[in-house]
Parts: sequence; structure tokens; C-alpha cells
Amino acid sequence: MLPDLPKFTQTQITTSLIHAKKEKNLSFEDLGKAIGRDEVAVAAIFYGQHHATEEDVKGLAKVLGLNSELLAYQLSEYPERGSGVEMPPKEPLIYRLYEVVQNYGQAYKAVLNEKFGDGIMSAIAFSTKVDKEVDEQGNTWVNISMRGKW
Amino acid sequence: MLPDLPKFTQTQITTSLIHAKKEKNLSFEDLGKAIGRDEVAVAAIFYGQHHATEEDVKGLAKVLGLNSELLAYQLSEYPERGSGVEMPPKEPLIYRLYEVVQNYGQAYKAVLNEKFGDGIMSAIAFSTKVDKEVDEQGNTWVNISMRGKW
Amino acid sequence: MLPDLPKFTQTQITTSLIHAKKEKNLSFEDLGKAIGRDEVAVAAIFYGQHHATEEDVKGLAKVLGLNSELLAYQLSEYPERGSGVEMPPKEPLIYRLYEVVQNYGQAYKAVLNEKFGDGIMSAIAFSTKVDKEVDEQGNTWVNISMRGKW
Amino acid sequence: MLPDLPKFTQTQITTSLIHAKKEKNLSFEDLGKAIGRDEVAVAAIFYGQHHATEEDVKGLAKVLGLNSELLAYQLSEYPERGSGVEMPPKEPLIYRLYEVVQNYGQAYKAVLNEKFGDGIMSAIAFSTKVDKEVDEQGNTWVNISMRGKW
Amino acid sequence: MLPDLPKFTQTQITTSLIHAKKEKNLSFEDLGKAIGRDEVAVAAIFYGQHHATEEDVKGLAKVLGLNSELLAYQLSEYPERGSGVEMPPKEPLIYRLYEVVQNYGQAYKAVLNEKFGDGIMSAIAFSTKVDKEVDEQGNTWVNISMRGKW
Amino acid sequence: MLPDLPKFTQTQITTSLIHAKKEKNLSFEDLGKAIGRDEVAVAAIFYGQHHATEEDVKGLAKVLGLNSELLAYQLSEYPERGSGVEMPPKEPLIYRLYEVVQNYGQAYKAVLNEKFGDGIMSAIAFSTKVDKEVDEQGNTWVNISMRGKW
Amino acid sequence: MLPDLPKFTQTQITTSLIHAKKEKNLSFEDLGKAIGRDEVAVAAIFYGQHHATEEDVKGLAKVLGLNSELLAYQLSEYPERGSGVEMPPKEPLIYRLYEVVQNYGQAYKAVLNEKFGDGIMSAIAFSTKVDKEVDEQGNTWVNISMRGKW
Amino acid sequence: MLPDLPKFTQTQITTSLIHAKKEKNLSFEDLGKAIGRDEVAVAAIFYGQHHATEEDVKGLAKVLGLNSELLAYQLSEYPERGSGVEMPPKEPLIYRLYEVVQNYGQAYKAVLNEKFGDGIMSAIAFSTKVDKEVDEQGNTWVNISMRGKW
Amino acid sequence: MLPDLPKFTQTQITTSLIHAKKEKNLSFEDLGKAIGRDEVAVAAIFYGQHHATEEDVKGLAKVLGLNSELLAYQLSEYPERGSGVEMPPKEPLIYRLYEVVQNYGQAYKAVLNEKFGDGIMSAIAFSTKVDKEVDEQGNTWVNISMRGKW
Amino acid sequence: MLPDLPKFTQTQITTSLIHAKKEKNLSFEDLGKAIGRDEVAVAAIFYGQHHATEEDVKGLAKVLGLNSELLAYQLSEYPERGSGVEMPPKEPLIYRLYEVVQNYGQAYKAVLNEKFGDGIMSAIAFSTKVDKEVDEQGNTWVNISMRGKW
Repeated sequence: MLPDLPKFTQTQITTSLIHAKKEKNLSFEDLGKAIGRDEVAVAAIFYGQHHATEEDVKGLAKVLGLNSELLAYQLSEYPERGSGVEMPPKEPLIYRLYEVVQNYGQAYKAVLNEKFGDGIMSAIAFSTKVDKEVDEQGNTWVNISMRGKW
Repeated sequence: MLPDLPKFTQTQITTSLIHAKKEKNLSFEDLGKAIGRDEVAVAAIFYGQHHATEEDVKGLAKVLGLNSELLAYQLSEYPERGSGVEMPPKEPLIYRLYEVVQNYGQAYKAVLNEKFGDGIMSAIAFSTKVDKEVDEQGNTWVNISMRGKW
Repeated sequence: MLPDLPKFTQTQITTSLIHAKKEKNLSFEDLGKAIGRDEVAVAAIFYGQHHATEEDVKGLAKVLGLNSELLAYQLSEYPERGSGVEMPPKEPLIYRLYEVVQNYGQAYKAVLNEKFGDGIMSAIAFSTKVDKEVDEQGNTWVNISMRGKW
Repeated sequence: MLPDLPKFTQTQITTSLIHAKKEKNLSFEDLGKAIGRDEVAVAAIFYGQHHATEEDVKGLAKVLGLNSELLAYQLSEYPERGSGVEMPPKEPLIYRLYEVVQNYGQAYKAVLNEKFGDGIMSAIAFSTKVDKEVDEQGNTWVNISMRGKW
Repeated sequence: MLPDLPKFTQTQITTSLIHAKKEKNLSFEDLGKAIGRDEVAVAAIFYGQHHATEEDVKGLAKVLGLNSELLAYQLSEYPERGSGVEMPPKEPLIYRLYEVVQNYGQAYKAVLNEKFGDGIMSAIAFSTKVDKEVDEQGNTWVNISMRGKW
Repeated sequence: MLPDLPKFTQTQITTSLIHAKKEKNLSFEDLGKAIGRDEVAVAAIFYGQHHATEEDVKGLAKVLGLNSELLAYQLSEYPERGSGVEMPPKEPLIYRLYEVVQNYGQAYKAVLNEKFGDGIMSAIAFSTKVDKEVDEQGNTWVNISMRGKW
Repeated sequence: MLPDLPKFTQTQITTSLIHAKKEKNLSFEDLGKAIGRDEVAVAAIFYGQHHATEEDVKGLAKVLGLNSELLAYQLSEYPERGSGVEMPPKEPLIYRLYEVVQNYGQAYKAVLNEKFGDGIMSAIAFSTKVDKEVDEQGNTWVNISMRGKW
Repeated sequence: MLPDLPKFTQTQITTSLIHAKKEKNLSFEDLGKAIGRDEVAVAAIFYGQHHATEEDVKGLAKVLGLNSELLAYQLSEYPERGSGVEMPPKEPLIYRLYEVVQNYGQAYKAVLNEKFGDGIMSAIAFSTKVDKEVDEQGNTWVNISMRGKW
Repeated sequence: MLPDLPKFTQTQITTSLIHAKKEKNLSFEDLGKAIGRDEVAVAAIFYGQHHATEEDVKGLAKVLGLNSELLAYQLSEYPERGSGVEMPPKEPLIYRLYEVVQNYGQAYKAVLNEKFGDGIMSAIAFSTKVDKEVDEQGNTWVNISMRGKW
Repeated sequence: MLPDLPKFTQTQITTSLIHAKKEKNLSFEDLGKAIGRDEVAVAAIFYGQHHATEEDVKGLAKVLGLNSELLAYQLSEYPERGSGVEMPPKEPLIYRLYEVVQNYGQAYKAVLNEKFGDGIMSAIAFSTKVDKEVDEQGNTWVNISMRGKW
């Protein structure tokens, strides 16, 4: 057993994970491939917004060169989801996603109710991916896909 | 030219569009196919959150059996985007999308900055689709995809 | 088919349902038994917070002596859940439930994560009941039970 | 008498209680059984949301292997209830309970007034339990029951 | 039975009660004496913040010269308490009471916990009175007394 | 003169006063009697919400066994009233007082204007007391009386 | 006695007073002189923020050519002070006054406490005036003076 | 040149200025006379809400016995005006000024527009004074005068 | 003189101005040229955010074919500036300007203080223009220039 | 490679940059010229609101006499834009810009939609400049120009 450990704040845990990632010069995509996860899920684990399974902990410890037991201790609590973003978001990039909900919220509801009947999409039994696309004119596009249980 | 027309509120315009759609027994998907648009965009036009081009107006008037000139008048203003959803959303289905932004906002930013560098995804030069998926266990999943210019 | 119908506000629908219920001198419990639903679900349908199935509409129309087609029209939209209560609630009775969440929220999370692992309880795939209990000293107690899918 | 003691923050007290619980490998249910309390009440004591009686303190000190006098000192203040959850809750699990109040608040009030007359349910003379249920299809359900004095 | 009655808003009910009171040239104190209630309770009934019993309705109808059956209909719903005052109050007189809570809240809690142990004072099983006092220097003082169940 | 003193935060001052009070095993009532003040006023001085006169400081220093000069220094600033309670209050006991203002605010205003004419009750030229009452059924009641200059 | 009168909203009363003032081509200063009040007090009566005495009503009715009895009825309620300005003010002119409080609030408190001891300035036993000044460079200055009981 | 200096927080600067002022037993009025400023301006400099000119710094350093170069360093930044008061103010004395804006805002605007035409009063090219008045009945009154450029 | 005129809401005035502009098929730029104003100022007059001089009224009435006396009546009040945009803005186009303030606010302050010393830029003695630019790659750029008195 | 570095807060980074700038006695304009940037962009980099390219880092390190590698480390994260200004801004200078958006928001939208059609101006692909102008009467004016991609 590890000796008596202090309580780490989420900021401390996030900082040390990002530091290790920089040291190893790895992208979230690299980490995702190494542990069999989408890169967004890996980033969410870094920020304490996604539960890390024992497998995730072992995989991350290995690829990042961290003490596996310590990492398990740091990531052992169930995530305090939603704690990282002040709403409405001030950060423009995150605000754009917020704006999508504000602009298209009613349209999504109308289409989803029509297609799926009464109910909701889960934001917990949920996964998401990000892809980069360059069109013929050389413009870059972001493709975000979300998949949630109904 | 049409005679002197009253100002319609967005609620009145939305209500009459939805009424016509019910009368014709058409889904947003049907309308989308008829006018060459994603169904979410059609719903967003209904709620005054998406600009309707002249083509959209003609197509909708035809398929919904509405007076094309009146519809053009009603949809002629540039959309007051964002006006339809009170934030944070009280409606659970829309709230789940809000929750995605709250939970994954930092992770999206970290991954997007890593993949695309500094910048943001546009929420205006933007399109979105909704698909239904049934997995092998018979569970229903919602797939939402978003595509925004970087 | 019914002739061209105006849009009813939720307040109008709620008022006419409550009026009919008073006329018939029926309690929510009576209505619940008549249509095979918990009484809280019936009240939630009255306030537009719960989806009414075709069965619910037929049953309510019959027991309340209302036009079934009109009622179906009035209850045909998917509920705008959450629209009825301003948060934080000003009404003391509803505030007490809010206070339970405020006081016991962390404790519920700690116990639920411990018992069920990572995840959440659905507030949509969800039912709830209210029971009255009188203890030996003659004190009255409210028992609220909630059942939500994990 | 204990020597001059520093003031402990609630976070410090909570952290040391949770640490002791982990060390002993005990669940809230175990602790509840050991001191004759519902497990939610035990968790609420951990988070400073529930008054700990002298009995509770002795019981907890014993089963957790803590100094009883120190624990009595730490838990001696009357709880600052409600201090632990920022409202509206960002944490999805706690938000779902909040959502229940938002969606069903009016319905609860209507049914409670009908069944109990004018008055309110206490959130202080109040107890609550959590049970786990697995239905025939293998789905897991959370059962929360609340009992409050009218 | 009364014929089919419209739904009255609280403002309409309050206005007609105040109008009748002015016509009869009665103070709240007069009304309170006539029906055996504190004057604050009478005013609270006028504003829909206090439940009117059948006795209250009969007494008020008699002394105000109103149709008893209509008044019973108007006052038949359980009060939507708390709906009349926007918080923080803008009205200076009401703000001063708010300020008392803001300034003395901690002190009340400290003294009440010390005197009564853990628990709270009910704001529902509650009565309150207002008295006027003129001291020897000719200054006027307001005495408000509150009595709530612990 | 005292040597160069650090600035004490209100929390530090409150903590050391409460600590001294515990050491001496005195209630607020005892302190109030010792210095000729209502117990609520004493508690308000503890929390920095009431101005302490030189007399108060001397009396408190004596009965609590504290250095009178240091205490005078700590209590020498004019109180930052209102700083101790976040509004709306999360603490249920304090919330109940807030709820009284929300429910009865209009009624108090109506009765006070009727009895006293135009004007307001001071919340500064103001005193308040708390009494305990046990009725014949053994129920405990809180009596709060407030007296403010008109 | 006047026949049964409808309830006038504050906006209706303000509009008809301002209309009469325009018809007579009178400034607030003219009105103030005619009824022996500061012009700001007259404007405050127009907006329902200041109590109008019987004298005020008679004077205003006379100079504005209005029915005195009707005006008395319209101005008979005790003012709902504070109801006219949404805070923080959006109107730049009013915002500047708000900004003065925000910038100089602490300084006023420090100076007032130093000069007057503990206490507050009344905002009700209060009068205020506005004067225009042109300095030697031809610049225009606003002088606002406030006088409140300590 | 002064050696490498740490960044001082506004609280630290305010505290040391007030401490020096106490040591010297000087009032804001004394300081104002010494440096040729209104006392409110001096207090505003203490709280970092007013720009201190080089002259102000020299004068204050001299009269307070402080190192002039250090004080210049501490007061060298342009003021972060408005940072000291949380709005709405909780402190009753400051709240009363806020209440004046809330109650009289519309009246000030109406009178100012009438007297000065379209425009606003500056809150920056602005000075303010506080005077004490004792009337014949021995009542104390606060006179606040504000002078702002139009 | 015009006969007794009703009070027009800002929305009614704006709607009729925009309607007249559409009928005449004129752009804001056309109107600006016709009356010698920047086009943004014309639009601001339409929305009641900018004072219209007598000249403006005559010019607008002439070019829009409106009754000059009626228009003078409608535009005669001093503008309630700031009333048209709910903050934070939900409309994406307006939000981008808000975002500029949020992102660059500190930088503007630092540069302005450095260049101009202590003071502020007026938002009232202020004019603004909008220009369109197409760069060599065919990209369209918006140029907004603001000029405010220091 | 640099040894293991602590995480710097934005405040620490800003403070050390401003300190170095003071030491070198350079204005933002000087820095802008030295590294080929507008002075507002330089200030925005100081406050962490603008991405610093490798070139920017090298240029700033050189002209400010800072360690280039350390500065690169400090400025290596993608900016958390929007984090520096609390909205609505309390600081009067920044508030004036906010007020421009509040007052002219609708007018900008109307003119921009008319000139550019549907769309928005980017606040990210965006640059801005500040110029000083002295008119013939000796008044100082601020000219702010913004250029954003449509």
C-alpha cells in the first residue's frame, strides 16, 4: 500500500498529467491509440470529467511513465463532472458549442421527438469524436460527432 | 405587391408552419428532402434560427401549400438567432446537449487546439445532422454530427 | 378531422383539465386508478410535464367527460418539461424538495457511486409515488419514492 | 480536555473521514449498520450536512479507528446545511434530482395539497434511503425514498 | 352550484378584495377582528399568500359584502406562497426585512442552535403580528413578532 | 500602545471569540447578561454584524478573559454589515426567515402603510430578541421579536 | 363618490401625467414651484416613486387641469418604490449614478463612519435637488445634492 | 531606483494606508486639507478607486510618514475603478445610495433631460463632497453633493 | 397641433419606420446620405437608441414619406438607450462584439491609459461607422470604427 | 531542455511581463513596433488573451531582456480568452465599450445584415487598433478600429 497521501486538487492532477504528456511529446490522439479510447475521452480524463477505469489508469501510467499506484489513487474518485466550465463559457471556442445549443436547441428537440418519440439522449452513456477535414478549396472544417443512448 | 401586412411574431410564424406541416402529414425529413436541406436546418428555419433563402421559401411554400409571397414576407428578416432557448435550458432533452458542453468543453478545446492550432470552430458557417442507430442489443442511439468551419 | 384549431397555451389546457376534474369531483388518485397511472404522473400530465400516450388521452377524456379528439390535439405535443417551476422555487412546498437536493446532493452521489459505480439515475425513465403515513403519535408523514433507471 | 485546537474546514474534516473509511475498506452501508443509521445519513454527516449526535460520534470514531474526542470537536458545530452543492448543480448525477424537482414540482404540490391539505413536507424532520433494484431484463434501477414530517 | 367560472388571476382577486375593503372603509385590523385573525394574516390572504379556511371565506364575504360562493371559488386553490415578492426586494420597506435576515442571519442561527439544539423554525406553522409603539420622546417604533414551530 | 498588529479577517476574529466562549462554557445569553445586551446582539458582534461600543469591548474582554486592547483593535472597524450571509441563504434555518419575507412581504407592507402611513421601518435603529416557548402539547415554539424605528 | 373605477397601471398614470404636462407646456421646475416641491420630487411622483400628499394632489390637479378626485384615486396607493429601474441600469444616464455608488461606495462609507460614527443615511427621509452650472470655459456641469437623515 | 518589488494587492495597500492614518491619528478631512483634496477623494485613493497624481503621492507620503518612492510604486497603476463594491451592495450604508438610484433614477433622468437636453453626466470628470448638518430639532443630516461634467 | 395621440411603444415606432424604409426600397446608407448621418446612427434612431434632432425628423419624414409632425411626436422622447439588447447578447452577431470587449477589455484599458493617461472614452459623445472590405483573396472583412471623446 | 517548471498563473506571467516592460521603460507601442504587431495585440498577449507565436516570443524576450525559453514555456498554452474581464465590466473604461454594444448592438446588426447579408463578423480572425486624435478645439478623441473577417 502507498503511504498516507495528501488530497490532490483536480488542477494538480491535470497539471501533472499534461506535464508528463509534454515530456513524452505525445498528442491526445497518441494516448487514445495507446489505451484504446477516443482522444476526447482521454482529454476528459485529464480534466477529471470522465471516469478512468483500472485499464485506463494502467495504460496511461505506462505510456506516460507515471507511477501506476499513485495515478490510480489520484484518479480513484468518481468524476465531479461539469466542474471545469463556467457557464456561459467565456472561452470563445467553448462558447461556440454553447451557441450551437442556444441556436439549434429547439430544432434538435423537434427533430429528435419526431424521429425517436418522447425521451432524451443520454449525455452520460455517450461518446464523442473530433475529426479534421480539408475541403477542395483548402478550407479546414471541424467534424464533431456525438453518440448518446436514447 | 402584397397589401400592407402586419408584423408577425416568431411564435405566430412557427405555429402556422407547424400547423401546415401537420395538415400535410409531413416530417422534417420529408421537408428536408423536398427542399434539399438537412432536417435540422428545416426545423431551425421553422423556429426562426436559420436564414431561409429565396429557394427555401419557394420550396417550403410549395410543399406546405402556403402562399409563397406571404411566406417570403414572414421569413424575410435576418434571423434573431439564439432567441428561442432560455439558458441554462430547462427542457431535459436540450439540457443534455448543454451538459455535453459543460462536461466536455475543456476536452474539446484541448483536442481542437492540439489538432488545429489556435482558432475556433464557427457556429454559423456550420451544419448539423441527426441520425438514428439501433445496435445489436436493440438499444437506440442518437448520432449527432456537427461540421463547422475552422 | 377536427376543424382548424387555435394553439392552446399550457395554462389554458391545465385550467380546463383542473376545471373538469373539479366538476366531476375526482382526485388525482381517482384519475390515476381510472387510467392505470400513478397519481403524480396524472398531475404531471395536467401540467404538461409528462407525455400522454393515446391510451392516457382516451382514459382521461372518458373519465373527465371531455372530447377525446380535442384532448388528443391539446396533449399532442411533446412536453416542454421543466417549464413550470421557476428555480429556485419560491413556493415553500416545492422549495423543500429543492432543499433536499441542496442538503443531500453530495451524500446521494457518494452513496450512489459506491453502490452502483460510475453513472447516473435517469430523471426521464423515471416514476414516482406519494404516500401518506400516520405514525403512532398521530403525526402525519409524507413518503415520496422515486425510481429511475441507472 | 484536548489542547488548543485549530479550526478545521469542512473539506479537511470530510477528507480525513473519507480517508479513514478507505483505509478500513468500509462502505457507507457498513458504517450505517455499525452506528444504526441509514447510509445516506452517514454520508451526509461526512459532508457536514447532517448533525452528528454524541452517539454517532462515538460509533464512527470506534469503527473508523479515530480519536473520539477529536472527532467530537470536529463535528461539534451545528451543520451549515446546503453549503455543499452549488445550485443549479453542475454534477450530472445531482442535476438529475434537481431536474425531478423542476419537472415534477407542480405535480407533487398538487397531489400533496389534495392528499394532505394546506401545509408542507419538512426537509429537516426528514430521512431518506437508497436501494438498488435489478429488474427481469437485467436493468438496474435506483429507488430513492424520502420520508418527511407534514 | 355557480355557473362555469373563468380563472381569476391573483391580481384580479387582490384588486377586488382591496376595492371592497376601501368601499367599506375598513382597515386590516377591523377585518382581523371581524374574522378572528391577526391583521397580517388577513393581508396575506388578500395577496394569496395564506390559505383561507371556509370560516375565513364566510367571515370575509360577510364583512366585505361579497358573494360567499364566488369568494370561496376565488380563494379555493392552495396558495402559491412566495409568488408576490421579487427577491431581492426592490421596495424599500420590504427590503429592510430582507436586510435583517442578511445582517442577523448568522446571529439568529447561533442563538437558536444554542437555545434549541439542531433544527429549524417553521415558516409555515407560523404566525406574525405587527404593533405600533410610541416612546417617550415621541418616536414611533414598529414591533414585529414572529412565532414559528421548532 | 499595542505593537504593529496584523489585519485580522472577520473569520479569524469570529473563530477566536467563539473559541474563548467555549473555553469559558458560556452561552450567548450569559454573555448578554454580563454586558447588558440582547443575546442576538452579542452573536451579531461575534460575526462582525453589529458595532461594538467601548463598553461592549471591555465587558466582553472581561467575561471572556481576553486582552481588552487587542479586542478593541479587532472590533474597532465599523461593521461590514450583511457580509456574512449569501443570499438567498442556503442554510435552512436562515432560509426560513428569508421565506417569511418572501411570503409575508406584501402583507407587512400593506399593514404597516395602513397603520403608520408612508415610511419604512429601520433595520439599523433596530433590536431583536429570541424567546423559547413550550405550549401545552409540549411543542416548542420560537418567538422572534423585532423592534425598529419608523 | 367616484363611480367604480378600474385599476390603473403605473404606466398609464405616468403617461397621462406626462401628457397633461406637455399639453400645458410646463417643466418639472414649473410644477415644483407651483406646488412647493423640488422638481425631482415632482418627477418621482410622476413615476410612482414618491408619496403624493393630499396637498400635492390638489396642486397638481389644478396646475395640470386634471380632475382632482380622479388624480387622488390614481395616486392613493403607497408607492411601490424601486419598481421603475432595472438594476444594473441599462440607461447610460442612470448607469452613471450607479457607477458613482460602485466607485465611491467604500469611500463614502469610510468618510461617513468617520464623521458620523456607526449608522446609516436614510434614503427615505431624504430629499434631492439638481442644479445646472456653466463654468468659465463654458462647460456645463450637473450638481446633484442629496440630503438624508442620519 | 527601488529594488525589485513584489506586486501588492489592493487590500495590502489599503490596509497599510489605513494603518498609517490610524498611527498618525488623522481623519480623512485632515488628509484632504493637507493635500488639497476633498476627503471623499482621499478615501477613494485609499481604496484604489481614484487616480493619485504625483502631487497626491508626495503629499500623502509626507503627512503619513511613508516612503514616497514606495508609495508611488504602490499607487502607480491606473485605478481598477468599481472593483471594491459587490453589487447590489450588502452593506446597508452603501445600499442606501444604491436605493436612491433605484428609486430616483427615472426622476433624475426626466429632470436632467429636461434641463440639459440629451446627454449624460460624467461619473469620471466628477467630484463629490460630504457635509454634516444638525437641524434645529437636533437631528443629524448627511449632505452629499456630486458635481459631474455634462 | 396634432389631436390627442396614443403612446407608441418603441417596437411600434421601429416597425413602422422599417416598413416605410422597405416600401421606399432604401438602405440605411441611402437614408444616411439623405439626412447627413452615418448609417449606424440612422439605424440607432430607428431602434430608439439615438436622439433624433428636429433636422433628423424632418429629413427622415421627407425621404420616407411620413407625416413629419407625427414622426416628431413619436421620436420626441429622450432615448432609453441600452433597452434593446439583452446582455449577454444571445444573437451571435451582436455577441461577437461583446466577445471583443470580454477578450480585449484589459488590453484596451492598458493601451488607452498608457496613451491617454487616466480617464475614459465616452460612449455618448461618440460616433461609429461600418465599412466593407474585400481583400485580394476575395475574403470579405468588416471594418468598424468608433470615435469617442476622451 | 528547461528543468521541471512550476505552473505559472496568468497573473504571475502578466505581472512579470509588465514588470520587465517598466524596467525597460517601454510602451506597448514600442513593443508593437519591435515585434511587428499592433500595440493592442501586444497588450492582449500580456494578459493571456492572444496567442503568441514563436516569433512573438522571441521578439518579446529579446526586447524585454527575458529568457526566451522560459517565456516560450509561460506563453505556450493556447489562450483562455475571455477570462480576464468579469461581465458586466465594473471598470468604467471597459464598461463604456460594453455600453457601445448594448446601445448600438441592434443598429450594427441591421446595418451589417443589410450590407453583408446573413452571417457574422469574426471576433477571432480579428485585429484592432487604437489611435489618438486632437481636434481643432483641443479636445482629445479615441479612435478604435476593428477589422474582422465576415
